[in-house]
Amino acid sequence: MLATLFYEPSTRTRLSFETGMIRLGGNAVGFAGTGQSSVSKGESIADTVRTVAAYADVIAIRHPKEGAALVAARAAERAGVPVINAGDGGHMHPTQTLADLATIRQRCGRLTDLTVGLCGDLMFGRTVHSLIETLCRWGNIHFVLVSPPELRVPQYVLDRIDKASGCSYEQVRDLAGVIGSLDVLYMTRVQKERFFSEDEYVRLRDTYVLDRARLAAARPDMAVLHPLPRVNEIATDVDADPRAAYFDQVANGMLVRMALMAAVLDDPLPGYGDEKRQTPAGEQ
Amino acid sequence: MLATLFYEPSTRTRLSFETGMIRLGGNAVGFAGTGQSSVSKGESIADTVRTVAAYADVIAIRHPKEGAALVAARAAERAGVPVINAGDGGHMHPTQTLADLATIRQRCGRLTDLTVGLCGDLMFGRTVHSLIETLCRWGNIHFVLVSPPELRVPQYVLDRIDKASGCSYEQVRDLAGVIGSLDVLYMTRVQKERFFSEDEYVRLRDTYVLDRARLAAARPDMAVLHPLPRVNEIATDVDADPRAAYFDQVANGMLVRMALMAAVLDDPLPGYGDEKRQTPAGEQ
Amino acid sequence: MLATLFYEPSTRTRLSFETGMIRLGGNAVGFAGTGQSSVSKGESIADTVRTVAAYADVIAIRHPKEGAALVAARAAERAGVPVINAGDGGHMHPTQTLADLATIRQRCGRLTDLTVGLCGDLMFGRTVHSLIETLCRWGNIHFVLVSPPELRVPQYVLDRIDKASGCSYEQVRDLAGVIGSLDVLYMTRVQKERFFSEDEYVRLRDTYVLDRARLAAARPDMAVLHPLPRVNEIATDVDADPRAAYFDQVANGMLVRMALMAAVLDDPLPGYGDEKRQTPAGEQ
Repeated sequence: MLATLFYEPSTRTRLSFETGMIRLGGNAVGFAGTGQSSVSKGESIADTVRTVAAYADVIAIRHPKEGAALVAARAAERAGVPVINAGDGGHMHPTQTLADLATIRQRCGRLTDLTVGLCGDLMFGRTVHSLIETLCRWGNIHFVLVSPPELRVPQYVLDRIDKASGCSYEQVRDLAGVIGSLDVLYMTRVQKERFFSEDEYVRLRDTYVLDRARLAAARPDMAVLHPLPRVNEIATDVDADPRAAYFDQVANGMLVRMALMAAVLDDPLPGYGDEKRQTPAGEQ
Repeated sequence: MLATLFYEPSTRTRLSFETGMIRLGGNAVGFAGTGQSSVSKGESIADTVRTVAAYADVIAIRHPKEGAALVAARAAERAGVPVINAGDGGHMHPTQTLADLATIRQRCGRLTDLTVGLCGDLMFGRTVHSLIETLCRWGNIHFVLVSPPELRVPQYVLDRIDKASGCSYEQVRDLAGVIGSLDVLYMTRVQKERFFSEDEYVRLRDTYVLDRARLAAARPDMAVLHPLPRVNEIATDVDADPRAAYFDQVANGMLVRMALMAAVLDDPLPGYGDEKRQTPAGEQ
Repeated sequence: MLATLFYEPSTRTRLSFETGMIRLGGNAVGFAGTGQSSVSKGESIADTVRTVAAYADVIAIRHPKEGAALVAARAAERAGVPVINAGDGGHMHPTQTLADLATIRQRCGRLTDLTVGLCGDLMFGRTVHSLIETLCRWGNIHFVLVSPPELRVPQYVLDRIDKASGCSYEQVRDLAGVIGSLDVLYMTRVQKERFFSEDEYVRLRDTYVLDRARLAAARPDMAVLHPLPRVNEIATDVDADPRAAYFDQVANGMLVRMALMAAVLDDPLPGYGDEKRQTPAGEQ
């Protein structure tokens, strides 16, 4: 029994958790949006999670506040119920990162010795922070960070790259000048809800748009990733290009969440139980 | 695995799809209202559907905009996932029509050679448009269209009747004068959300109300249908009358949706797989 | 097949019904909040329930209006579908009471010969009214009613106690003076949504707060109950105290709802079918 506690809406993440659990042979309950839950009565995350831990075997939580998943995990610990972070504010989105990694390996055949471009809102994009953090564990990645100055990655993320084995980065404002060097291009949505003003959002959202013309300068085997939903950062005429990998990410997202839920429930997937696990070389 | 993508609320339609799929042995996930989905982040229908097609085997979509189901069907086509239109704006509501047809055949024993009255908001009522379109395929129907001048059926619907084999229509303003001639009376809700102003809604909503007094002039075997929800178009004192067929429509609605989902999934219902299908005679 | 019709949000109650039904081997569908349902189109409770009764085998309803569950039960009667009241306004919340009783018996070993304190909002608290009503059936309870004068229990509840076998009550304003005499302390939330003004809510909500200091005066085996969600009526430092029983209530809530659904569906729980039922001695 999975409980999905989504304090923010997310079709993709919630439905992939729910269908994943059902495909594993389990069931799912939950809420989507605080209007449906006791949050509107002032209940704390810890109380809600401790309550739901009495009903469910595993909890997936999405929350607008950074750190909410950690609070939830501590509250559910006593009941022995694992909590999966399905995105906490601008902080992390680890299951999206698992989908990203699966897709990169599918396309590139490896998770190391890559030049990875990340483009758009690198300040508030939790998927960007999660992906950089995780690729740093594998090592030997050159990150090309493409963003306007106002939306650069936070300093703690740069510090993480500096500490990682064989990793380096460059920060640029222009996608066109670097796209030809990339193995992977990770586009991100300029998220309206993270902005302080409508004006600032409108000014910046069209800066980093990928279309067929810009894509022409990329390598024929570059993989274009995007955590979705997109607004207009990738023109729909790119969808049919074989380099477009973002709908593969969606499919992989369900599969990695199935694997993760099976793992935290100590329920080995059929045929995979005896295999040795592959672990990152650069793990610290 | 069914996904219900309901961009507009609909208890009846959504729950009948979901319980129908569960009764077929499957499962259902989805959302009800855009507040629960990534729509609020500006995602297009096509992207949402293409995403959900990675999780589900069949999709049922309800959307306030005409043509949304067609867009959805095209987006899901590549993934080989069938999309069922669960109502698109003022355009069509084909599974309601299947429920209507099942109920008419149950009551009248046939779907042709009938005098069918449709009463209320005939301009915005998508169930009316769907039902007329479909009965025209069977042929030999006389339609009695009862509405205020402001809420008449659109011209393209009248054109459809003109082209259909053995079909005819009359447009009247008064239910009392025609009720005695009807085999079927299809009442519709004057939908507040389709009106331009509150004043216009209030002025028109009470015009075409069916109560016991008015029903007295009808034939003893006339069937009263309504797609529900009703507000006050049918007085509750009509519910106990044997001519009231609208709660039968509800039950039939789940059954026809089960049959439809089984059909689009190529999953023949037990005991029905070898039967020859009955097709409309007037099919064009 | 359970349908949960929640016209008001309630994470705890809805999820415990749904997970309970799934653990019994069934399934659950429903809505949480009127924004998701046809209520927004003006449909009556009776029509909604009669519709849902065509899909589901049992219905659980939560509604902000007193008496809604009774209306629902009458509407579903014709279809032979049992309706469970999951809370109707300030009136009753009987399945919460079943959870309360299970927890009291678990802690005290009996449901009679007890001194039971109820503290906080006793006027609007439906769980309080349900619990008093039910304990009166068992008899020999002394109720200590702790509330500000503005939030005392309604007179009909006091009349109920007066009629019950061996039952008595006292009304006090101060928890500290009576806490030492209690076998059970039932804390309640001062529910913001039941108040007439924000000012009145703020003035009263902090009046009856239980913390470690106040708990020190209680017996070592007193049980602290709370229907949850809490806002600040019980300080979180009380959670680790062995007298805190409110998270046990949550777990018991799912179990009693499973038992109730099995009972109304005539589906005897495995191993319990042949046992003689225990009935309240003071039943009237």
